[in-house]
Amino acid sequence: MKKLKRSARLVEMTQYLLNRPHTLISLTAFADRYQSAKSSISEDLAIIKEVFEEEGIGELHTLAGAAGGVKYIPKMTTTAAVSIMHNIFRQLEQPERVLPGGYLYMTDMLGQPELLHDVGRIFATAFADRSIDVIMTVETKGIPLAYATATCLNLPVVIVRRDNKVTEGSAVSINYVSGSNKRIQTMSLARRALKERSRVLIIDDFMKAGGTVQGMMDLLYEFNATVAGVGVFVESGEVGSEDRLLEDYISLAKLTAVDMKTKQTTVVLGNYFDDKV
Amino acid sequence: MKKLKRSARLVEMTQYLLNRPHTLISLTAFADRYQSAKSSISEDLAIIKEVFEEEGIGELHTLAGAAGGVKYIPKMTTTAAVSIMHNIFRQLEQPERVLPGGYLYMTDMLGQPELLHDVGRIFATAFADRSIDVIMTVETKGIPLAYATATCLNLPVVIVRRDNKVTEGSAVSINYVSGSNKRIQTMSLARRALKERSRVLIIDDFMKAGGTVQGMMDLLYEFNATVAGVGVFVESGEVGSEDRLLEDYISLAKLTAVDMKTKQTTVVLGNYFDDKV
Repeated sequence: MKKLKRSARLVEMTQYLLNRPHTLISLTAFADRYQSAKSSISEDLAIIKEVFEEEGIGELHTLAGAAGGVKYIPKMTTTAAVSIMHNIFRQLEQPERVLPGGYLYMTDMLGQPELLHDVGRIFATAFADRSIDVIMTVETKGIPLAYATATCLNLPVVIVRRDNKVTEGSAVSINYVSGSNKRIQTMSLARRALKERSRVLIIDDFMKAGGTVQGMMDLLYEFNATVAGVGVFVESGEVGSEDRLLEDYISLAKLTAVDMKTKQTTVVLGNYFDDKV
Repeated sequence: MKKLKRSARLVEMTQYLLNRPHTLISLTAFADRYQSAKSSISEDLAIIKEVFEEEGIGELHTLAGAAGGVKYIPKMTTTAAVSIMHNIFRQLEQPERVLPGGYLYMTDMLGQPELLHDVGRIFATAFADRSIDVIMTVETKGIPLAYATATCLNLPVVIVRRDNKVTEGSAVSINYVSGSNKRIQTMSLARRALKERSRVLIIDDFMKAGGTVQGMMDLLYEFNATVAGVGVFVESGEVGSEDRLLEDYISLAKLTAVDMKTKQTTVVLGNYFDDKV
Protein backbone atom coordinates (compact mmCIF):
# COMPACT_ATOMS: atom_id res chain seq x y z
CA MET A 1 0.00 0.00 0.00
CA LYS A 2 1.31 3.45 -0.86
CA LYS A 3 1.94 5.91 1.96
CA LEU A 4 -1.25 7.72 2.89
CA LYS A 5 -1.94 11.08 4.51
CA ARG A 6 -3.41 10.92 8.00
CA SER A 7 -6.93 11.68 6.77
CA ALA A 8 -6.79 8.86 4.20
CA ARG A 9 -5.12 6.54 6.72
CA LEU A 10 -7.98 7.09 9.18
CA VAL A 11 -10.50 6.06 6.52
CA GLU A 12 -8.49 2.96 5.61
CA MET A 13 -7.83 1.92 9.23
CA THR A 14 -11.49 2.37 10.11
CA GLN A 15 -12.63 0.02 7.34
CA TYR A 16 -9.79 -2.40 8.12
CA LEU A 17 -10.81 -2.66 11.78
CA LEU A 18 -14.55 -2.85 11.04
CA ASN A 19 -13.92 -5.81 8.73
CA ARG A 20 -11.91 -7.66 11.40
CA PRO A 21 -13.94 -7.75 14.62
CA HIS A 22 -12.54 -9.69 17.59
CA THR A 23 -9.18 -9.99 15.81
CA LEU A 24 -5.92 -8.83 17.39
CA ILE A 25 -3.98 -6.62 14.98
CA SER A 26 -0.46 -5.74 16.02
CA LEU A 27 0.78 -2.16 15.92
CA THR A 28 3.67 -3.46 13.84
CA ALA A 29 1.26 -4.81 11.22
CA PHE A 30 -0.43 -1.41 11.01
CA ALA A 31 2.93 0.43 10.93
CA ASP A 32 4.09 -1.81 8.06
CA ARG A 33 0.79 -1.55 6.23
CA TYR A 34 0.81 2.24 6.29
CA GLN A 35 4.59 2.78 6.28
CA SER A 36 4.16 4.98 9.31
CA ALA A 37 5.72 5.25 12.75
CA LYS A 38 3.99 3.36 15.55
CA SER A 39 3.51 6.67 17.35
CA SER A 40 1.44 8.00 14.43
CA ILE A 41 -0.56 4.76 14.33
CA SER A 42 -1.24 5.06 18.05
CA GLU A 43 -2.54 8.58 17.58
CA ASP A 44 -4.81 7.39 14.76
CA LEU A 45 -6.13 4.57 16.92
CA ALA A 46 -6.86 7.01 19.74
CA ILE A 47 -9.04 9.06 17.37
CA ILE A 48 -10.85 5.95 16.08
CA LYS A 49 -11.31 4.61 19.62
CA GLU A 50 -12.89 7.85 20.77
CA VAL A 51 -15.35 7.95 17.85
CA PHE A 52 -16.24 4.25 18.16
CA GLU A 53 -16.91 4.58 21.87
CA GLU A 54 -18.70 7.94 21.78
CA GLU A 55 -20.95 6.88 18.91
CA GLY A 56 -21.68 3.44 20.35
CA ILE A 57 -20.07 1.56 17.47
CA GLY A 58 -17.93 -0.61 19.68
CA GLU A 59 -14.78 -0.79 21.74
CA LEU A 60 -11.16 -0.68 20.69
CA HIS A 61 -9.13 -2.75 23.12
CA THR A 62 -5.45 -1.94 23.09
CA LEU A 63 -2.96 -4.45 24.43
CA ALA A 64 0.44 -3.05 25.39
CA GLY A 65 3.77 -4.83 25.07
CA ALA A 66 5.65 -6.80 22.45
CA ALA A 67 2.63 -8.99 21.62
CA GLY A 68 0.43 -5.93 21.82
CA GLY A 69 -1.98 -4.53 19.36
CA VAL A 70 -5.56 -3.53 18.98
CA LYS A 71 -8.82 -5.43 18.84
CA TYR A 72 -12.17 -4.08 17.68
CA ILE A 73 -15.14 -5.37 19.70
CA PRO A 74 -18.48 -4.50 18.07
CA LYS A 75 -20.94 -3.35 20.71
CA MET A 76 -24.36 -1.84 20.86
CA THR A 77 -25.46 0.43 23.67
CA THR A 78 -28.57 -0.57 25.63
CA THR A 79 -30.29 2.64 24.50
CA ALA A 80 -29.70 1.80 20.82
CA ALA A 81 -30.67 -1.83 21.36
CA VAL A 82 -33.94 -0.89 23.07
CA SER A 83 -34.77 1.55 20.28
CA ILE A 84 -34.12 -1.12 17.64
CA MET A 85 -36.17 -3.69 19.54
CA HIS A 86 -39.12 -1.30 19.78
CA ASN A 87 -39.05 -0.85 16.00
CA ILE A 88 -39.00 -4.64 15.69
CA PHE A 89 -41.96 -4.93 18.10
CA ARG A 90 -44.04 -2.64 15.89
CA GLN A 91 -43.45 -5.04 13.01
CA LEU A 92 -44.02 -8.17 15.12
CA GLU A 93 -47.32 -6.84 16.47
CA GLN A 94 -48.92 -6.56 13.01
CA PRO A 95 -52.11 -8.69 13.28
CA GLU A 96 -51.51 -10.47 9.97
CA ARG A 97 -48.44 -12.16 11.51
CA VAL A 98 -50.46 -14.35 13.88
CA LEU A 99 -50.27 -18.01 12.89
CA PRO A 100 -52.13 -20.98 14.38
CA GLY A 101 -50.61 -22.31 17.61
CA GLY A 102 -49.47 -18.96 18.95
CA TYR A 103 -46.67 -18.56 16.43
CA LEU A 104 -45.76 -15.42 14.58
CA TYR A 105 -44.79 -15.16 10.94
CA MET A 106 -41.42 -13.46 11.01
CA THR A 107 -39.59 -15.09 8.12
CA ASP A 108 -39.71 -11.87 6.11
CA MET A 109 -38.16 -9.94 8.98
CA LEU A 110 -35.36 -12.51 9.25
CA GLY A 111 -34.65 -11.80 5.58
CA GLN A 112 -33.85 -8.10 6.10
CA PRO A 113 -30.06 -7.58 6.21
CA GLU A 114 -30.29 -4.42 8.32
CA LEU A 115 -32.46 -6.04 11.00
CA LEU A 116 -30.16 -9.08 11.05
CA HIS A 117 -27.11 -6.87 11.34
CA ASP A 118 -28.65 -5.05 14.32
CA VAL A 119 -29.83 -8.19 16.10
CA GLY A 120 -26.51 -9.94 15.46
CA ARG A 121 -24.79 -6.96 17.05
CA ILE A 122 -27.01 -7.15 20.13
CA PHE A 123 -26.21 -10.87 20.52
CA ALA A 124 -22.52 -10.11 19.96
CA THR A 125 -22.69 -7.52 22.74
CA ALA A 126 -24.45 -9.94 25.06
CA PHE A 127 -21.90 -12.71 24.50
CA ALA A 128 -18.77 -10.60 23.87
CA ASP A 129 -17.01 -11.73 27.05
CA ARG A 130 -17.75 -15.46 26.81
CA SER A 131 -15.16 -17.90 25.60
CA ILE A 132 -16.73 -19.36 22.44
CA ASP A 133 -15.30 -21.51 19.64
CA VAL A 134 -18.31 -21.88 17.38
CA ILE A 135 -21.92 -20.79 16.93
CA MET A 136 -24.57 -23.45 16.39
CA THR A 137 -28.10 -23.23 15.07
CA VAL A 138 -30.66 -25.58 13.56
CA GLU A 139 -32.05 -25.10 10.09
CA THR A 140 -33.79 -23.06 8.77
CA LYS A 141 -34.94 -19.77 10.23
CA GLY A 142 -32.21 -19.38 12.83
CA ILE A 143 -29.43 -19.53 10.23
CA PRO A 144 -29.34 -15.85 9.23
CA LEU A 145 -29.31 -14.76 12.89
CA ALA A 146 -26.48 -17.17 13.64
CA TYR A 147 -24.43 -15.76 10.74
CA ALA A 148 -25.12 -12.16 11.67
CA THR A 149 -23.90 -12.90 15.21
CA ALA A 150 -20.92 -14.90 13.93
CA THR A 151 -19.85 -12.04 11.69
CA CYS A 152 -19.66 -9.67 14.67
CA LEU A 153 -17.89 -12.23 16.88
CA ASN A 154 -15.60 -13.57 14.12
CA LEU A 155 -16.65 -17.17 14.77
CA PRO A 156 -17.56 -20.08 12.50
CA VAL A 157 -21.13 -21.39 12.27
CA VAL A 158 -22.31 -24.99 12.42
CA ILE A 159 -25.80 -25.86 11.18
CA VAL A 160 -27.68 -28.81 12.61
CA ARG A 161 -29.91 -30.56 10.06
CA ARG A 162 -33.53 -31.41 10.86
CA ASP A 163 -33.31 -34.77 9.20
CA ASN A 164 -30.84 -37.61 9.05
CA LYS A 165 -30.14 -37.28 5.34
CA VAL A 166 -26.68 -35.99 6.08
CA THR A 167 -24.52 -36.95 3.11
CA GLU A 168 -21.34 -35.75 4.71
CA GLY A 169 -19.85 -38.88 6.18
CA SER A 170 -20.70 -40.25 9.62
CA ALA A 171 -23.20 -38.22 11.57
CA VAL A 172 -24.68 -38.13 15.05
CA SER A 173 -28.47 -38.06 15.22
CA ILE A 174 -30.68 -37.52 18.23
CA ASN A 175 -34.41 -37.50 18.74
CA TYR A 176 -36.14 -34.65 20.45
CA VAL A 177 -39.65 -33.45 21.16
CA SER A 178 -40.34 -30.01 19.83
CA GLY A 179 -42.84 -27.88 21.70
CA SER A 180 -44.51 -26.95 18.47
CA ASN A 181 -46.25 -30.22 17.75
CA LYS A 182 -45.16 -32.64 20.51
CA ARG A 183 -43.94 -35.06 17.85
CA ILE A 184 -40.63 -36.83 18.05
CA GLN A 185 -38.28 -35.27 15.56
CA THR A 186 -34.70 -35.93 14.51
CA MET A 187 -31.72 -33.63 14.26
CA SER A 188 -28.28 -34.55 12.97
CA LEU A 189 -24.79 -33.20 12.75
CA ALA A 190 -21.89 -34.57 10.72
CA ARG A 191 -19.03 -35.83 12.92
CA ARG A 192 -16.55 -33.66 11.06
CA ALA A 193 -18.66 -30.53 11.55
CA LEU A 194 -17.71 -29.99 15.21
CA LYS A 195 -14.46 -30.61 17.06
CA GLU A 196 -14.63 -32.44 20.39
CA ARG A 197 -14.70 -30.19 23.45
CA SER A 198 -15.80 -27.10 21.53
CA ARG A 199 -17.44 -24.27 23.46
CA VAL A 200 -20.65 -23.59 21.61
CA LEU A 201 -23.01 -20.62 21.51
CA ILE A 202 -26.52 -21.72 20.47
CA ILE A 203 -28.57 -19.13 18.55
CA ASP A 204 -32.18 -19.63 17.45
CA ASP A 205 -35.01 -17.47 16.22
CA PHE A 206 -37.88 -18.67 18.40
CA MET A 207 -38.24 -20.65 21.61
CA LYS A 208 -41.34 -22.01 23.21
CA ALA A 209 -40.66 -24.63 25.88
CA GLY A 210 -37.09 -25.02 24.65
CA GLY A 211 -37.30 -28.55 23.20
CA THR A 212 -35.31 -27.66 20.12
CA VAL A 213 -32.56 -25.92 22.10
CA GLN A 214 -32.52 -28.85 24.54
CA GLY A 215 -32.09 -31.15 21.52
CA MET A 216 -29.07 -29.15 20.40
CA MET A 217 -27.65 -29.37 23.92
CA ASP A 218 -28.12 -33.16 23.89
CA LEU A 219 -26.34 -33.26 20.55
CA LEU A 220 -23.45 -31.22 21.98
CA TYR A 221 -23.13 -33.77 24.78
CA GLU A 222 -22.46 -36.44 22.11
CA PHE A 223 -19.55 -34.33 20.85
CA ASN A 224 -18.18 -33.73 24.37
CA ALA A 225 -18.83 -30.09 23.64
CA THR A 226 -20.04 -27.54 26.16
CA VAL A 227 -22.69 -24.84 25.95
CA ALA A 228 -21.11 -21.41 26.19
CA GLY A 229 -24.47 -19.66 25.94
CA VAL A 230 -27.97 -19.71 24.45
CA GLY A 231 -29.48 -16.73 22.66
CA VAL A 232 -33.00 -16.65 21.26
CA PHE A 233 -34.49 -13.77 19.32
CA VAL A 234 -38.11 -14.20 20.45
CA GLU A 235 -39.42 -16.39 23.25
CA SER A 236 -43.02 -17.34 23.73
CA GLY A 237 -44.54 -16.05 26.93
CA GLU A 238 -47.25 -18.72 26.84
CA VAL A 239 -44.94 -21.18 28.57
CA GLY A 240 -44.83 -21.01 32.35
CA SER A 241 -41.36 -21.11 33.91
CA GLU A 242 -42.19 -24.56 35.35
CA ASP A 243 -42.65 -25.96 31.83
CA ARG A 244 -39.53 -24.36 30.43
CA LEU A 245 -36.83 -26.93 29.76
CA LEU A 246 -33.92 -24.58 30.28
CA GLU A 247 -33.20 -21.61 32.49
CA ASP A 248 -29.90 -20.21 31.34
CA TYR A 249 -30.62 -18.35 28.11
CA ILE A 250 -30.86 -14.83 26.79
CA SER A 251 -33.94 -13.64 24.92
CA LEU A 252 -34.27 -10.31 23.15
CA ALA A 253 -38.04 -10.25 22.87
CA LYS A 254 -40.94 -11.96 24.59
CA LEU A 255 -44.34 -12.61 23.10
CA THR A 256 -46.69 -12.14 26.05
CA ALA A 257 -49.96 -13.16 24.55
CA VAL A 258 -51.59 -13.94 21.24
CA ASP A 259 -55.32 -13.45 21.08
CA MET A 260 -56.39 -15.77 18.27
CA LYS A 261 -59.76 -14.04 17.95
CA THR A 262 -58.60 -10.46 17.60
CA LYS A 263 -55.14 -11.41 16.27
CA GLN A 264 -53.69 -9.01 18.82
CA THR A 265 -50.21 -9.69 20.10
CA THR A 266 -48.04 -7.93 22.59
CA VAL A 267 -44.27 -8.09 22.42
CA VAL A 268 -42.03 -6.88 25.24
CA LEU A 269 -38.30 -6.81 25.89
CA GLY A 270 -36.72 -10.20 26.62
CA ASN A 271 -34.71 -11.16 29.68
CA TYR A 272 -31.48 -9.72 28.22
CA PHE A 273 -32.79 -6.30 29.17
CA ASP A 274 -34.02 -7.31 32.65
CA ASP A 275 -31.26 -5.63 34.65
CA LYS A 276 -30.61 -2.92 32.06
CA VAL A 277 -33.75 -0.85 31.64
CA MET B 1 -24.49 13.90 17.42
CA LYS B 2 -22.03 16.45 18.78
CA LYS B 3 -19.89 18.40 16.34
CA LEU B 4 -16.80 16.42 15.41
CA LYS B 5 -13.38 17.43 14.17
CA ARG B 6 -12.59 16.48 10.58
CA SER B 7 -10.47 13.48 11.62
CA ALA B 8 -13.25 12.10 13.83
CA ARG B 9 -15.86 12.91 11.20
CA LEU B 10 -13.94 10.88 8.61
CA VAL B 11 -13.96 7.86 10.92
CA GLU B 12 -17.68 8.23 11.62
CA MET B 13 -18.62 8.80 7.96
CA THR B 14 -16.57 5.82 6.86
CA GLN B 15 -18.38 3.45 9.23
CA TYR B 16 -21.73 5.07 8.39
CA LEU B 17 -21.24 4.48 4.66
CA LEU B 18 -19.83 0.94 5.09
CA ASN B 19 -22.93 -0.03 7.07
CA ARG B 20 -25.29 1.30 4.37
CA PRO B 21 -24.22 -0.18 1.01
CA HIS B 22 -26.35 0.60 -2.05
CA THR B 23 -28.23 3.27 -0.09
CA LEU B 24 -28.49 6.86 -1.27
CA ILE B 25 -27.55 9.26 1.52
CA SER B 26 -28.23 12.93 0.86
CA LEU B 27 -25.58 15.56 1.48
CA THR B 28 -28.17 17.35 3.61
CA ALA B 29 -28.51 14.31 5.86
CA PHE B 30 -24.74 14.22 6.35
CA ALA B 31 -24.57 17.99 6.88
CA ASP B 32 -27.29 17.75 9.56
CA ARG B 33 -25.76 14.68 11.16
CA TYR B 34 -22.38 16.32 11.54
CA GLN B 35 -23.53 19.94 11.89
CA SER B 36 -21.15 20.86 9.12
CA ALA B 37 -21.34 22.77 5.88
CA LYS B 38 -22.08 20.75 2.74
CA SER B 39 -18.77 21.97 1.32
CA SER B 40 -16.89 20.33 4.22
CA ILE B 41 -18.92 17.13 3.79
CA SER B 42 -18.08 17.11 0.08
CA GLU B 43 -14.39 17.38 0.87
CA ASP B 44 -14.64 14.50 3.35
CA LEU B 45 -16.45 12.37 0.78
CA ALA B 46 -13.73 13.09 -1.77
CA ILE B 47 -11.11 11.73 0.65
CA ILE B 48 -13.20 8.63 1.43
CA LYS B 49 -13.93 8.07 -2.27
CA GLU B 50 -10.25 8.17 -3.14
CA VAL B 51 -9.29 5.67 -0.42
CA PHE B 52 -12.20 3.32 -1.23
CA GLU B 53 -11.33 3.31 -4.93
CA GLU B 54 -7.55 3.13 -4.56
CA GLU B 55 -7.73 0.31 -2.02
CA GLY B 56 -10.38 -1.65 -3.91
CA ILE B 57 -12.98 -1.35 -1.16
CA GLY B 58 -15.70 -0.10 -3.45
CA GLU B 59 -17.08 2.88 -5.29
CA LEU B 60 -18.66 6.04 -3.96
CA HIS B 61 -21.22 7.27 -6.47
CA THR B 62 -22.11 10.91 -6.06
CA LEU B 63 -25.35 12.25 -7.51
CA ALA B 64 -25.50 15.98 -8.03
CA GLY B 65 -28.59 18.17 -7.69
CA ALA B 66 -31.34 18.73 -5.15
CA ALA B 67 -32.05 15.00 -4.82
CA GLY B 68 -28.33 14.36 -4.85
CA GLY B 69 -26.23 12.46 -2.42
CA VAL B 70 -23.79 9.65 -2.19
CA LYS B 71 -24.07 5.89 -2.52
CA TYR B 72 -21.47 3.33 -1.44
CA ILE B 73 -21.18 0.37 -3.83
CA PRO B 74 -19.05 -2.46 -2.36
CA LYS B 75 -16.75 -3.87 -5.02
CA MET B 76 -13.89 -6.27 -5.23
CA THR B 77 -11.16 -5.95 -7.85
CA THR B 78 -10.55 -8.93 -10.13
CA THR B 79 -7.02 -9.24 -8.75
CA ALA B 80 -8.28 -9.48 -5.17
CA ALA B 81 -11.09 -11.85 -6.21
CA VAL B 82 -8.69 -14.19 -8.03
CA SER B 83 -6.34 -14.23 -5.05
CA ILE B 84 -9.21 -15.08 -2.69
CA MET B 85 -10.47 -17.80 -5.04
CA HIS B 86 -7.02 -19.40 -5.20
CA ASN B 87 -6.94 -19.59 -1.41
CA ILE B 88 -10.38 -21.20 -1.55
CA PHE B 89 -9.18 -23.69 -4.18
CA ARG B 90 -6.38 -24.85 -1.89
CA GLN B 91 -9.00 -25.69 0.72
CA LEU B 92 -11.39 -27.28 -1.78
CA GLU B 93 -8.67 -29.52 -3.20
CA GLN B 94 -7.97 -31.24 0.14
CA PRO B 95 -8.49 -34.97 -0.62
CA GLU B 96 -10.60 -35.61 2.50
CA ARG B 97 -13.31 -33.38 1.01
CA VAL B 98 -14.24 -35.85 -1.75
CA LEU B 99 -17.69 -37.34 -1.18
CA PRO B 100 -19.42 -40.10 -3.14
CA GLY B 101 -21.03 -38.93 -6.40
CA GLY B 102 -18.42 -36.32 -7.25
CA TYR B 103 -19.47 -33.95 -4.47
CA LEU B 104 -17.19 -32.01 -2.22
CA TYR B 105 -17.65 -31.46 1.49
CA MET B 106 -17.59 -27.70 1.87
CA THR B 107 -20.07 -27.09 4.68
CA ASP B 108 -17.26 -26.06 7.05
CA MET B 109 -16.00 -23.50 4.54
CA LEU B 110 -19.50 -22.06 4.17
CA GLY B 111 -19.45 -21.55 7.95
CA GLN B 112 -16.45 -19.18 7.93
CA PRO B 113 -17.63 -15.55 8.16
CA GLU B 114 -14.54 -14.16 6.42
CA LEU B 115 -14.87 -16.48 3.41
CA LEU B 116 -18.59 -15.72 3.18
CA HIS B 117 -17.91 -12.01 3.37
CA ASP B 118 -15.38 -12.26 0.53
CA VAL B 119 -17.55 -14.45 -1.68
CA GLY B 120 -20.61 -12.28 -1.00
CA ARG B 121 -18.58 -9.30 -2.11
CA ILE B 122 -17.55 -11.01 -5.35
CA PHE B 123 -21.20 -11.83 -6.12
CA ALA B 124 -22.17 -8.26 -5.19
CA THR B 125 -19.56 -6.97 -7.65
CA ALA B 126 -20.80 -9.32 -10.37
CA PHE B 127 -24.44 -8.29 -9.95
CA ALA B 128 -23.96 -4.65 -8.85
CA ASP B 129 -25.52 -3.18 -12.00
CA ARG B 130 -28.55 -5.48 -12.26
CA SER B 131 -31.95 -4.33 -11.17
CA ILE B 132 -32.80 -6.73 -8.32
CA ASP B 133 -35.57 -6.70 -5.70
CA VAL B 134 -34.75 -9.81 -3.72
CA ILE B 135 -32.22 -12.65 -3.43
CA MET B 136 -33.50 -16.23 -3.39
CA THR B 137 -31.85 -19.45 -2.32
CA VAL B 138 -32.97 -22.92 -1.29
CA GLU B 139 -32.19 -24.37 2.10
CA THR B 140 -29.68 -25.18 3.54
CA LYS B 141 -26.13 -24.66 2.39
CA GLY B 142 -26.79 -21.75 0.04
CA ILE B 143 -28.33 -19.63 2.82
CA PRO B 144 -25.14 -18.08 4.25
CA LEU B 145 -23.90 -17.15 0.76
CA ALA B 146 -27.24 -15.57 -0.07
CA TYR B 147 -27.08 -13.48 3.12
CA ALA B 148 -23.49 -12.45 2.56
CA THR B 149 -24.43 -11.24 -0.92
CA ALA B 150 -27.61 -9.59 0.32
CA THR B 151 -25.68 -7.66 2.96
CA CYS B 152 -23.42 -6.13 0.30
CA LEU B 153 -26.32 -5.39 -2.05
CA ASN B 154 -28.72 -4.23 0.69
CA LEU B 155 -31.45 -6.61 -0.47
CA PRO B 156 -33.83 -8.96 1.38
CA VAL B 157 -33.46 -12.74 1.18
CA VAL B 158 -36.16 -15.31 0.52
CA ILE B 159 -35.50 -18.95 1.40
CA VAL B 160 -37.22 -21.74 -0.51
CA ARG B 161 -38.02 -24.78 1.65
CA ARG B 162 -37.13 -28.28 0.50
CA ASP B 163 -40.38 -29.74 1.77
CA ASN B 164 -44.00 -28.74 1.77
CA LYS B 165 -44.28 -28.40 5.52
CA VAL B 166 -44.59 -24.66 5.18
CA THR B 167 -46.63 -23.48 8.17
CA GLU B 168 -46.81 -19.93 6.96
CA GLY B 169 -50.14 -19.74 5.24
CA SER B 170 -50.73 -20.69 1.63
CA ALA B 171 -47.69 -21.85 -0.26
CA VAL B 172 -46.70 -22.74 -3.79
CA SER B 173 -44.97 -26.09 -4.23
CA ILE B 174 -43.30 -27.48 -7.31
CA ASN B 175 -41.62 -30.75 -8.09
CA TYR B 176 -38.18 -30.87 -9.59
CA VAL B 177 -35.53 -33.43 -10.42
CA SER B 178 -32.24 -32.75 -8.73
CA GLY B 179 -29.12 -33.85 -10.54
CA SER B 180 -27.75 -35.35 -7.37
CA ASN B 181 -30.00 -38.39 -7.15
CA LYS B 182 -32.43 -38.12 -10.09
CA ARG B 183 -35.32 -38.36 -7.66
CA ILE B 184 -38.34 -36.13 -7.80
CA GLN B 185 -38.17 -33.65 -4.97
CA THR B 186 -40.41 -30.84 -3.74
CA MET B 187 -39.67 -27.23 -3.01
CA SER B 188 -42.08 -24.68 -1.58
CA LEU B 189 -42.41 -21.00 -0.94
CA ALA B 190 -45.06 -19.21 1.11
CA ARG B 191 -47.29 -16.93 -0.99
CA ARG B 192 -46.56 -13.99 1.28
CA ALA B 193 -42.78 -14.48 1.00
CA LEU B 194 -42.44 -12.99 -2.47
CA LYS B 195 -44.28 -10.12 -4.14
CA GLU B 196 -45.60 -10.65 -7.67
CA ARG B 197 -43.33 -9.41 -10.45
CA SER B 198 -40.22 -9.28 -8.27
CA ARG B 199 -36.83 -9.34 -9.97
CA VAL B 200 -34.95 -12.14 -8.29
CA LEU B 201 -31.26 -13.01 -8.01
CA ILE B 202 -30.79 -16.74 -7.37
CA ILE B 203 -27.73 -17.70 -5.30
CA ASP B 204 -26.67 -21.28 -4.55
CA ASP B 205 -23.58 -23.04 -3.27
CA PHE B 206 -23.25 -25.88 -5.81
CA MET B 207 -24.65 -26.66 -9.24
CA LYS B 208 -24.39 -29.85 -11.21
CA ALA B 209 -26.84 -30.04 -14.12
CA GLY B 210 -28.84 -27.15 -12.68
CA GLY B 211 -32.01 -29.01 -11.67
CA THR B 212 -32.32 -27.20 -8.36
CA VAL B 213 -31.80 -23.77 -9.93
CA GLN B 214 -34.27 -24.69 -12.67
CA GLY B 215 -36.73 -25.65 -9.92
CA MET B 216 -36.35 -22.20 -8.36
CA MET B 217 -36.92 -20.62 -11.79
CA ASP B 218 -40.11 -22.66 -12.22
CA LEU B 219 -41.22 -21.50 -8.79
CA LEU B 220 -40.55 -17.87 -9.76
CA TYR B 221 -42.77 -18.34 -12.81
CA GLU B 222 -45.64 -19.19 -10.43
CA PHE B 223 -45.12 -15.82 -8.72
CA ASN B 224 -44.92 -13.93 -12.03
CA ALA B 225 -41.42 -13.05 -10.94
CA THR B 226 -38.41 -12.74 -13.21
CA VAL B 227 -34.86 -14.00 -12.89
CA ALA B 228 -32.43 -11.09 -12.59
CA GLY B 229 -29.43 -13.39 -12.41
CA VAL B 230 -28.07 -16.72 -11.18
CA GLY B 231 -24.86 -17.00 -9.16
CA VAL B 232 -23.35 -20.29 -8.01
CA PHE B 233 -20.27 -20.61 -5.86
CA VAL B 234 -18.99 -23.92 -7.32
CA GLU B 235 -20.17 -25.70 -10.44
CA SER B 236 -19.42 -29.28 -11.29
CA GLY B 237 -17.36 -29.73 -14.42
CA GLU B 238 -18.58 -33.29 -14.86
CA VAL B 239 -21.66 -32.09 -16.69
CA GLY B 240 -21.28 -31.48 -20.40
CA SER B 241 -22.75 -28.23 -21.69
CA GLU B 242 -25.38 -30.27 -23.60
CA ASP B 243 -26.70 -31.67 -20.31
CA ARG B 244 -26.73 -28.37 -18.51
CA LEU B 245 -30.27 -27.13 -17.94
CA LEU B 246 -29.39 -23.43 -17.97
CA GLU B 247 -26.88 -21.26 -19.75
CA ASP B 248 -27.14 -17.84 -18.21
CA TYR B 249 -25.42 -18.08 -14.84
CA ILE B 250 -22.24 -16.95 -13.12
CA SER B 251 -19.97 -19.43 -11.37
CA LEU B 252 -16.98 -18.50 -9.24
CA ALA B 253 -15.29 -21.90 -9.24
CA LYS B 254 -15.44 -25.02 -11.36
CA LEU B 255 -14.65 -28.53 -10.21
CA THR B 256 -13.00 -30.07 -13.25
CA ALA B 257 -12.60 -33.64 -12.13
CA VAL B 258 -12.81 -35.82 -9.07
CA ASP B 259 -10.77 -39.00 -9.14
CA MET B 260 -12.58 -41.27 -6.71
CA LYS B 261 -9.58 -43.61 -6.44
CA THR B 262 -6.92 -41.05 -5.59
CA LYS B 263 -9.39 -38.52 -4.12
CA GLN B 264 -7.68 -35.90 -6.25
CA THR B 265 -9.70 -32.91 -7.34
CA THR B 266 -8.88 -29.91 -9.43
CA VAL B 267 -10.68 -26.62 -9.01
CA VAL B 268 -10.36 -23.76 -11.49
CA LEU B 269 -11.87 -20.31 -11.85
CA GLY B 270 -15.52 -20.26 -12.85
CA ASN B 271 -17.06 -18.50 -15.85
CA TYR B 272 -17.28 -15.16 -13.98
CA PHE B 273 -13.57 -14.76 -14.62
CA ASP B 274 -13.69 -15.87 -18.29
CA ASP B 275 -13.25 -12.45 -19.85
CA LYS B 276 -11.29 -11.01 -16.95
CA VAL B 277 -8.10 -13.00 -16.49
